[in-house]
Amino acid sequence: MVSKEMYELGAKRSVIRELFEYGKQQAAIVGKENVFDFSIGNPTVPAPECVKEAILELLETSKSEEIHGYTSAQGDLEVRRGLADYMSNMFNCQLNADNFYMTCGAAASLSITLRALAANPEDEIIIIAPYFPEYQIFIRNAGAKVVAVPADTEKFQIKMELLEKAITSNTKGIIINSPNNPSGVVYSEETLKALAGLLKKKSEEYKKPLYLISDEPYREIIYDDLKIPYIPAYYENAIICYSYSKSLSLPGERIGYILVPDCVENAKAVYTAVCGAGRSLGYVCAPSMFQKIALRCLGKTADVALYDTNRRLLYDGLSKMGYECVKPDGAFYLFVKSLEENSINFAKKAKKLNLLIVPADDFGCPGYVRISYCVAQEMIKRSFDAFQKLRDLY
Amino acid sequence: MVSKEMYELGAKRSVIRELFEYGKQQAAIVGKENVFDFSIGNPTVPAPECVKEAILELLETSKSEEIHGYTSAQGDLEVRRGLADYMSNMFNCQLNADNFYMTCGAAASLSITLRALAANPEDEIIIIAPYFPEYQIFIRNAGAKVVAVPADTEKFQIKMELLEKAITSNTKGIIINSPNNPSGVVYSEETLKALAGLLKKKSEEYKKPLYLISDEPYREIIYDDLKIPYIPAYYENAIICYSYSKSLSLPGERIGYILVPDCVENAKAVYTAVCGAGRSLGYVCAPSMFQKIALRCLGKTADVALYDTNRRLLYDGLSKMGYECVKPDGAFYLFVKSLEENSINFAKKAKKLNLLIVPADDFGCPGYVRISYCVAQEMIKRSFDAFQKLRDLY
Repeated sequence: MVSKEMYELGAKRSVIRELFEYGKQQAAIVGKENVFDFSIGNPTVPAPECVKEAILELLETSKSEEIHGYTSAQGDLEVRRGLADYMSNMFNCQLNADNFYMTCGAAASLSITLRALAANPEDEIIIIAPYFPEYQIFIRNAGAKVVAVPADTEKFQIKMELLEKAITSNTKGIIINSPNNPSGVVYSEETLKALAGLLKKKSEEYKKPLYLISDEPYREIIYDDLKIPYIPAYYENAIICYSYSKSLSLPGERIGYILVPDCVENAKAVYTAVCGAGRSLGYVCAPSMFQKIALRCLGKTADVALYDTNRRLLYDGLSKMGYECVKPDGAFYLFVKSLEENSINFAKKAKKLNLLIVPADDFGCPGYVRISYCVAQEMIKRSFDAFQKLRDLY
Repeated sequence: MVSKEMYELGAKRSVIRELFEYGKQQAAIVGKENVFDFSIGNPTVPAPECVKEAILELLETSKSEEIHGYTSAQGDLEVRRGLADYMSNMFNCQLNADNFYMTCGAAASLSITLRALAANPEDEIIIIAPYFPEYQIFIRNAGAKVVAVPADTEKFQIKMELLEKAITSNTKGIIINSPNNPSGVVYSEETLKALAGLLKKKSEEYKKPLYLISDEPYREIIYDDLKIPYIPAYYENAIICYSYSKSLSLPGERIGYILVPDCVENAKAVYTAVCGAGRSLGYVCAPSMFQKIALRCLGKTADVALYDTNRRLLYDGLSKMGYECVKPDGAFYLFVKSLEENSINFAKKAKKLNLLIVPADDFGCPGYVRISYCVAQEMIKRSFDAFQKLRDLY
C-alpha cells in the first residue's frame, strides 16, 4: 500500500551501513580493540575551534530571532555575500551573493541541482566510476536516467573515449567528484582540459548546454600542497555542489551550498529552477545558525594533517605488504585492488579477520575495496596484523 | 533547458513573501513605524532559555564528533528514545524510538511522508480549505494529485458531506492541520470523531487504509487551556508530522519529526518507506545538534502568553470596529472576512494604508484575509488607525 520504490530504498541498507552496524555488534563480542572498522566516511578529526567560537559569539551578541529565524530560501544574504567575496578572492573570479544557494549539505545540493535541471524523463545524467552510490538515487528522484561510464583502472582519471560514447542527445549533465570518493584521486589539469574540450565539442554537436556538476565536499581534504582548481575556469557550464561536512567536520549539521556562476548558460534560469527545486523538495532554508557559522569559519578547516598521517601510514604499510593501492591525493579513502577477482568475497574474508573494508562493486568498480582512513591512528597500527593475515590467504 | 516546472516554482514567489518584501521596501520610504506588516508567520517570541542552555551544555560536555557527527538516518537513538518516553507519558500511549523519524522541519516531514505513501500517479491526497498553500507543492512532488475540499465558512471545522464526496477509490490520505494556519481554529472533539468515523467507513468501503496525516507544528501554540489531543487515539491510521519551528521558536534550524505509531496499518512498511523517502529526497539526517537540543527541551515552549496578548488585542480591537473575525484558538493568525467579495482587492486597499494582510485565495478560501499576530505588540496598537481607515472605506 505504500510506495514500493521507497519501501525498497528504506529496506535495503547500503553495504557501508551494513558493515558499520556489524562492526558495532562484533565489537561487543570480541572487544572494540579487535575490530578494525574502515567502513564509513565519518570525519574523526574534530571541528576547528572557530566553530565553537562562532556559536558562543552568536549566542552572546545576537537575538534569538536573528540566530534561529527563517532565512530567505536562498540563504542569509550576509552569509552569501561573505561567501561570494571569499570565493571571488580565492579563485580570482567575479561572484556575488545571487550565485549562491545555501543547502542542507551535499546530498541536498545534488538533489536540488538535478531536480532543477532534469526537464523530461529521457534526460540522462552521466556518472563516472568509481562513483558515490547515492548519486543513482538522487538522479532517479530527479526523474532522470543514470548513465555510468566504466572506471579508468589505470590512473582513475576519466577514459575520455568511454565518456564520449556515453554522451547522447539526451545527456543533460555529468557529475564529477574530485577529490574522489572512493578512489582518493584528484583529477589532473590534463583530465580537466580534456573533459572541458569534449563537453564543449558535444554541446556544439547537440546544440544544447551540457551541464557539468562538480560535487566538491572533499575540496579542502587534499595533500602534498595540491590545490583543487575552480572548475568553471575550465568549462563554463559548471555548477558547484559543496558541503561543509568534511572541511569543517560537521557532517550531521547538514550545511552546504550550490554555486551557479554567471558563466553558466541561462544562469539566471538555472538559479531560479534551483530555488524552485529546493521549494519542491521541502527544504525551506538551510539551517540558519550553521549558515552563520560557515560565514565566520570561511577559509578554516579541520586539521587535515591528521588524515595525512593516516594516509601515509596505511598507504606505505599496505604497499609494503604487496597490496596494490591507488595513490591517494585527497579525501580520506584508500582504494585497494582486491586479491581475488571477486571483491565481495575478498571483503568477506577480511570481515572474518574483523577487518571491515567495503567492496567497491556498489561504487561501480568491482575488483577493488575502499578503506576509510578517517579513523584513529592507533587502530590503523593495530590492523596491520590482520591485513598481513589477509594477504597470506592468497 | 531547465525543468519548466521547477523554474516556474522558483520564479513565482508566494503572495506572503511578496508582501513581506514589499513591507521592507516601504519601510525604507515611509519609515518602519508607519508600515504594519502582518504578512509572515515568523515567530517573534524568542526561543526558551533551555535552547541556549542546551547548546552551552553540549559544547561543554560532549566531543565535537558527538555533537556534529552523522546520526543514523532515522535520527539519534537517544533522542528518539527520550521523545518516545515523553510522548507516551503525555498522551498515555505506547511509543518507542522506532516509531519516530527525525526530520528537517515540517516541510520535510510532510514531503517525506507523502513520498513514502504515494504509490502511483492516480493516488489522491485530500486537503481541507483553508490550507497551507505549500501542501499542493509537496503533494505534487510526491507524484500524487491534490484534491481540495471547500472551507466550512461557518465554523471553520470540516464539512463532512463535502469531504465524503471528495473521497474516491484513489484517495491515499488526507492532511489535517489543527491548530490551523490560516484560520487559527482548533478542530473540536466532535469534528475529530466524525472525521474518524467517516475515514473508517470509507476504508472499509474501499477495502484499503486511508492515511490521516496530521500536520502539527502549532500543537503547543494554543490558548484558554485548550489541549490538542493525540490523533491516533481517534483514528488508528494516523501519522503525525511535527516541527519545533513554532513551539521552540527555531524556524530556521529545520528540526522536527514524523511519528508512525504501531496502530497504523502496515506500520513497519510505512516507516520503512519513510526511511526510503528521506534517503531519496537527499535528507541524510536531521541536523544533529538540534536533535540533541530538542531532547533537552522536551516539554518546554517559547512564551505563548505573549502571542495570547496579541491575539486578544487584535481580536477585540478589530471586532469592535465591526470586522468579522474567526475566533482564534491556536496558532498565531487571525482570519478575517474581507469587507468586499474580492479579498485580493481588499488586501490591495489595505496595502495602500501600509497595512500588509494576506488575501486567503491561495489558502483555498477567497473572501478572507490572514493577519499574522506574531509581531510586536506596539505595532498592533499603532495599526488600529489604519484598520479603522480601511473599515471606513466600506
